Amino acid sequence: MLHSLLRSVGTASRTALLGSSAGTKTILARPLLKARWMSSTAGKPIECFAAVAWEPKADYWNNALSVEKVVVQPPKSGEVRVKVTHTALCHTDAFTLSGEDAEGKFPCILGHEAAGIVESVGEGVKDIEVGDHVIPCYQAECYPEDQASDHCPRCRGYRVGKTNLCGKIRPFTGSGVMASDQDSRFTAQKDGSKLWHYMGTSTFSQYTVLHAESVAKIRKDAPLEKVNLLGCGLATGWGAVWNTAKVEEDSTCAIFGLGAVGLSVIEGCAKAKAKRIIAIDINPDKWEDAKAFGATEFVNPRDFDKPIQQVIVEKTGGGVDYSFECVGNTDLMRSALECTHIGWGQSVIIGVAGAGKEISTRPFQLVTGRVWKGTAFGGFKSRSQVPELVDKYLAGEVKIDEYITHNRNLTDINEAFELLHSGKCLRCVIWMGNDAPEA
Amino acid sequence: MLHSLLRSVGTASRTALLGSSAGTKTILARPLLKARWMSSTAGKPIECFAAVAWEPKADYWNNALSVEKVVVQPPKSGEVRVKVTHTALCHTDAFTLSGEDAEGKFPCILGHEAAGIVESVGEGVKDIEVGDHVIPCYQAECYPEDQASDHCPRCRGYRVGKTNLCGKIRPFTGSGVMASDQDSRFTAQKDGSKLWHYMGTSTFSQYTVLHAESVAKIRKDAPLEKVNLLGCGLATGWGAVWNTAKVEEDSTCAIFGLGAVGLSVIEGCAKAKAKRIIAIDINPDKWEDAKAFGATEFVNPRDFDKPIQQVIVEKTGGGVDYSFECVGNTDLMRSALECTHIGWGQSVIIGVAGAGKEISTRPFQLVTGRVWKGTAFGGFKSRSQVPELVDKYLAGEVKIDEYITHNRNLTDINEAFELLHSGKCLRCVIWMGNDAPEA
Ligand SMILES: [Zn+2]
Ligand SMILES: [Zn+2]
Ligand SMILES: [Zn+2]
Ligand SMILES: [Zn+2]
Repeated sequence: MLHSLLRSVGTASRTALLGSSAGTKTILARPLLKARWMSSTAGKPIECFAAVAWEPKADYWNNALSVEKVVVQPPKSGEVRVKVTHTALCHTDAFTLSGEDAEGKFPCILGHEAAGIVESVGEGVKDIEVGDHVIPCYQAECYPEDQASDHCPRCRGYRVGKTNLCGKIRPFTGSGVMASDQDSRFTAQKDGSKLWHYMGTSTFSQYTVLHAESVAKIRKDAPLEKVNLLGCGLATGWGAVWNTAKVEEDSTCAIFGLGAVGLSVIEGCAKAKAKRIIAIDINPDKWEDAKAFGATEFVNPRDFDKPIQQVIVEKTGGGVDYSFECVGNTDLMRSALECTHIGWGQSVIIGVAGAGKEISTRPFQLVTGRVWKGTAFGGFKSRSQVPELVDKYLAGEVKIDEYITHNRNLTDINEAFELLHSGKCLRCVIWMGNDAPEA
Repeated sequence: MLHSLLRSVGTASRTALLGSSAGTKTILARPLLKARWMSSTAGKPIECFAAVAWEPKADYWNNALSVEKVVVQPPKSGEVRVKVTHTALCHTDAFTLSGEDAEGKFPCILGHEAAGIVESVGEGVKDIEVGDHVIPCYQAECYPEDQASDHCPRCRGYRVGKTNLCGKIRPFTGSGVMASDQDSRFTAQKDGSKLWHYMGTSTFSQYTVLHAESVAKIRKDAPLEKVNLLGCGLATGWGAVWNTAKVEEDSTCAIFGLGAVGLSVIEGCAKAKAKRIIAIDINPDKWEDAKAFGATEFVNPRDFDKPIQQVIVEKTGGGVDYSFECVGNTDLMRSALECTHIGWGQSVIIGVAGAGKEISTRPFQLVTGRVWKGTAFGGFKSRSQVPELVDKYLAGEVKIDEYITHNRNLTDINEAFELLHSGKCLRCVIWMGNDAPEA
C-alpha cells in the first residue's frame, strides 16, 4: 500500500517535492503500519523516497541533498529492512556531506540518528521480527557467539567487555556496503545508479537495509519521533560522562561547545551530581540552554585575551576534573586537555575533527597525571544498551524532547541542514512520512 | 669524626679527588655510623663533599660536575638532614645537567635516586629519627592532616587518593629551595656561593637536607647500596605497569626503549603475567637484557622501512593492549600510542622530553578508544609505598641487583655520567663514602 502510494507520489516533480522556493509541499501519505501489509513487500524491492547525496558539497546547507525516488532491495542473509519513520540530522552527516570525511563515498544516502519499524528480515536473523520497533545503530554490536569465536576480532576472548567498538561489520559499514556480498541495497530509481550506504545506517531513506548487528530493538510504547535521537548525539554525550570519563559526585567539569552533544554532556554531568559544570561557547545565546540542562557557569572565550585553558585553570583553582570537547576543533581539544587538573584531570574528545587535523600538547601534561581519551557512541554497547536508554527516557530520568527544536518533512531536509548550520537548531527531526507537525 | 675526616680530605686538590687522568684516587674514609656521633653534628653546619653542577653543559658526560667541598646547613623546621650513603644516576640528572630542563637552576647539586641515614631532624618532624634508614623521594607525600586541610591543594577533600602528585612542597622543590624560608641549605666551601637544591633531593652530596614530606623511612636490614634504586627509575617502571596502566594477565605490551626504566617496565609486565612483551630498541645488544627481565620478543625499528607502529600493529593483529615510552622522544610517544589496539589500547608516557617538544596525533586515535596517559614516579605514593617496595625486594619478588651494572666512588661521578651516556650502563651506583667495590 505504501508502495503504491509512493509510486503515485513519485510522479510529482522534484521541485514540487522539495517545495522550497514556491512554498508548496507535496505530502507523502503516512503508511499504515500493519504487519500483514508489510509481509506483502517482503522479498521484493521497494520504491520509496530518500534524500540522496550525489556528491560532496562544501556548502552542505545549500540544497545539497536531492529528495528523489530510490529502490531498496530486500534484505539478504543476516540483514533487516526497516521502514524509517523519523531521523534526526547530526553534524557528522554535515561533515561527510561537506566532503571533509575521508571515508565518505558518493553517491550515497546519509543519516544515522533514527528510529523505525522492521519491514522484513533476511535469512538467519535472530531476535528481530517484522513489526519490531528499532533504532539503527551506526556502532554495531555482535552477538555473543561471534564474541566467543573469530567472527569478531575486537570482542573475542579475554577482551570481551573492553570496548563498544565491535569490529565485526566495520570494514563494510566503513566502505558503504553490506557484508554478505559487499554490495549496496540502494539504487536511484531514475537511472539505476548505485547509491552507497553510510555508517551502516542510511536513514535518510524511507526504507533502509541494516546488518542485524546494527539493529537495537526497543519497546513499542516509545515515541519513535523522540527516541530516534538515541541513535547518536544524546547517547554519545551521556556516555562520554558516564562510561568514558566516569564523572563522580562533586567533581568539576568543563564542556566545550554547546550543541546537542555538549548539552547532553552537561545533562550527563548534572545526573552524575557534578558540583560545577562550566559551559563554554563563543555564542552567548547558548547560555540559557546550557543552564536549563544543568550548567552552573558560562564562559565565553571571546571575553578574555588569554588562552581559555588558563581562564579555566584560574577560575577553578588548578583546573577541572573532567573536560569534554564537543566541537571537533583540534585547538579546542588541546585547550580542553590543558584546562584539566594536574594529577587526575581527564579530557574526553567527542567532536570529529577534519581530515588530516592533528592534536598536540606537551608530554609534560600527560606525565603529570592528565589523561587524554575519546569516545565513540559514548562507550555504549548499542544493541544491548540503547533499549536501556529508552527505558531511562520513559522513566523520566533523561531528557529527549528538550533537544528537539525543530520538526520537518523529508521534503524539507535541505532546510533542516540550513537550520543545523545556522546554529539555532539543536536537533531537527525529519518525519519520513512527510507528516511533521507544523512547528 | 666524619666531619674532621672530610676536613682533612678537603685539603686534597680537586684533580686528586677526581683521580681521573692520573688514575690515582683519594679515598674518603667511610664514616662510622653511630647515633652518638651523629648527635655531635646536630644543629651545626657540616662540611662534606658533593658533586656540584656549576652550570649546564650540553656534553654532560664530559666532566660536567665538580666534586668539591660544600657546607650543608642544619635542618630547619620540618626538615631532615640525611647522610647520603649511595646514589644512582638517572637520565633526568643528565637531562637537567645538559641544560634541557626548563626548571633547572644553577649552580646546584643534582641527584635524586639515593638512600641514606638520618643525621639530624629539625623541629616538628614526626615519625623520623636520627639513625633511621631512608630513601629521599623527589615526589613528596604530605601527611594525613595536611590532606584534610588546605595545606595540600592536591590531596585535600574528596580527591584524596586520586594522585600521587602531592603538591604541598612542589613550588619549592621545583625552584631549588626549602619551603620554610625559600632558601637553600647548601653553599660552596671555596667561596660561599649559594648552591640550589634539585628535585627536593640533591643526593650528589654526602649530606643533604630534605623536607620531611620527601623522606621514606625503610627497614634497616635493606642494603642501602641496592635499594637506592627505588628512589626513581625502578619504582617508575613497575608503577607505570601496575598503577598507571594496570596491565592484566594475558595482555600484549610494547616497551619503547630498553634502559633501566624500560627493563623495569618489562619486569612489571612479566609480574603482571602479560602474554606478549615486545621489547623495542634500535640497539640489538639490548635484547639479551630485555629477555632476562621477561621480554618475549624483540623488534628493532631499523630492521623495517615502515613506521614502527605499523610493524607492531601487523605483528599483533591489530595492536598491543598497552605500550610504554621510556625514552623521552616525542616521535616515539606517537608511535607508542598508535601501535595500541583500537577500542582499548593504552599508552603511557614515562620518558621526559626536551623543553618545548610536543606530542601529536590524529584525534581519531583517541575517539576510537585509545587512551594516552603518563606517569610520574609510577603513581606510587612515596612515603607510604617505597617501604613496601623495599619489602617486595627483600621478599625476592622484584629485582634490583640486576639493574646495577656499575659501582663507582663519588670522586668518579663524571665517569659514571660517561657510562650512562655510552648506553652500556643500566644503573651506576655512586658510593658516597668513596668505598665502592672494585667492579
Ligand atoms: Zn551523529
Ligand atoms: Zn563484536
Ligand atoms: Zn599532598
Ligand atoms: Zn630519575
